[in-house]
Amino acid sequence: MAKQLPHVAVVGVGLIGGSVAAGCKARGLAARVTGVDSNPTAREIARARGLVDAVEAAPGDSLRDADLVVLSVPVGALARVLGTTARLLRDGTTVTDVGSVKRPVVTAAERALPAGPRFVGGHPIAGTEGAGPAHASPRLFEDAMCILTPTARTDPGALAQTRALWEGLGARVVLMDAERHDAVLAATSHLPHVLAYALVGMLAEMEEENGPLFSYGGGGLRDMTRIAQSPATLWREICLLNRDPLLKVLGRFREGLARLEALVVAGNAKALEEAFQRAGIRRREVIRRSPC
Amino acid sequence: MAKQLPHVAVVGVGLIGGSVAAGCKARGLAARVTGVDSNPTAREIARARGLVDAVEAAPGDSLRDADLVVLSVPVGALARVLGTTARLLRDGTTVTDVGSVKRPVVTAAERALPAGPRFVGGHPIAGTEGAGPAHASPRLFEDAMCILTPTARTDPGALAQTRALWEGLGARVVLMDAERHDAVLAATSHLPHVLAYALVGMLAEMEEENGPLFSYGGGGLRDMTRIAQSPATLWREICLLNRDPLLKVLGRFREGLARLEALVVAGNAKALEEAFQRAGIRRREVIRRSPC
Repeated sequence: MAKQLPHVAVVGVGLIGGSVAAGCKARGLAARVTGVDSNPTAREIARARGLVDAVEAAPGDSLRDADLVVLSVPVGALARVLGTTARLLRDGTTVTDVGSVKRPVVTAAERALPAGPRFVGGHPIAGTEGAGPAHASPRLFEDAMCILTPTARTDPGALAQTRALWEGLGARVVLMDAERHDAVLAATSHLPHVLAYALVGMLAEMEEENGPLFSYGGGGLRDMTRIAQSPATLWREICLLNRDPLLKVLGRFREGLARLEALVVAGNAKALEEAFQRAGIRRREVIRRSPC
Repeated sequence: MAKQLPHVAVVGVGLIGGSVAAGCKARGLAARVTGVDSNPTAREIARARGLVDAVEAAPGDSLRDADLVVLSVPVGALARVLGTTARLLRDGTTVTDVGSVKRPVVTAAERALPAGPRFVGGHPIAGTEGAGPAHASPRLFEDAMCILTPTARTDPGALAQTRALWEGLGARVVLMDAERHDAVLAATSHLPHVLAYALVGMLAEMEEENGPLFSYGGGGLRDMTRIAQSPATLWREICLLNRDPLLKVLGRFREGLARLEALVVAGNAKALEEAFQRAGIRRREVIRRSPC
């Protein structure tokens, strides 16, 4: 197990930040866990559920003696929070984040924290249907993957400390270039969200014109549209922050869809079946290896 | 409860046909339930599990005294099976099917069964992960929806008998034009399948070029790709048989996706968030009303 840190501070005690805090306490990863959240309800819930030892409304002097600061704010707010946090930290504090987009965050962090504190970009791939500290759990990251995106400038000690945090919370840590992370997540997460939003949007439009559709849907439609319930503000931020990788993969998806469409137009049964078959085989392989 | 029929015959004892047969027996809807299946393994399982009272390899003389024949073969085989079945039936036998596409089936049926037997197009919206008679259950249709697509030519008695069958099996029966059915299902089922196949196909291609992707996916990706495991032959048949409605909705989806893409290109945060928000609200409404 990792050496216990004297003080871990979590900025943003929502689902992810609250779970990091609770996990640090439950697993003894930190002697003291403090939180910061501008939302009074989140602070109240974090206090009531004992996710943190103390929680404040804004980053303040208490961050000064933190050994590790975990920024768990929506990815669109990270650059701003980095700016307000940076000048409160002493040299030697490790700073990490949990945002779904990494290249812009890492760039902003290395600019905001030039000499002293050490930044490591991070992204735990975990979540639940629920949002906010009410759904936080010390076990949220057990068996989850956490991607860390160190750069050539990243301090090895800061990387080791961040890795120890996530491994201590039960996650498998994977190191990756920030660019590769953003390309991977554009394909595996951001594109699927856009497709789900587009599908629900289209069905809703068609319902207004011609009457009920969703009520005739089965389990397939339910599964395909579930992530359209994800927080709209967060996903707008993610899509715009990861714009270029997302547009690249959107273009590629459009091309693949157009190829299937052309097979339908041509009535090419053989090639259409082969394409469906290949996808089905790949999906089954993936699920067998690890429930993706 | 519906009057018990002397003899219900099920042609094709897979998941759906086997479940119709088992449901008829379990609920006493028929005094005798017979099956037909060209697949020896399916016949063996149907016999061993007692889904039917008797099962044959091909439609034969035993169909002659059936009161109601349920064609539960893959939708691409329906026209052929209608042809071979039609000449074995006496006047007055009701014939229905369970295919996911209705206009071509209804047209083929009214051509194949001109004077005597009475055809009612049907489509129970039910299924499970598993396929084949091993997964058949007398309870598969409980609380499911079953769409029936009578035409101006449909015999009212045949419609009443078919409705009684599905209601007897626990389903909610909805009547709809065959054209409307095909447009609805293109949007709620056939398009989502094509999107899932396209998404998995794209990710598989990208993995070959640049390494793992699926292993970094979360629950969203798992949900969005599940139906890519659906039987490729059946879905190729459905897509080609329902070609025009599918192409129409594919075009519309493409337009909607292009609109979202344009908002990302333009960095239009407000409009992008509104589009995501609208979709999320609709999805939550739908799920509250009935788990689609």
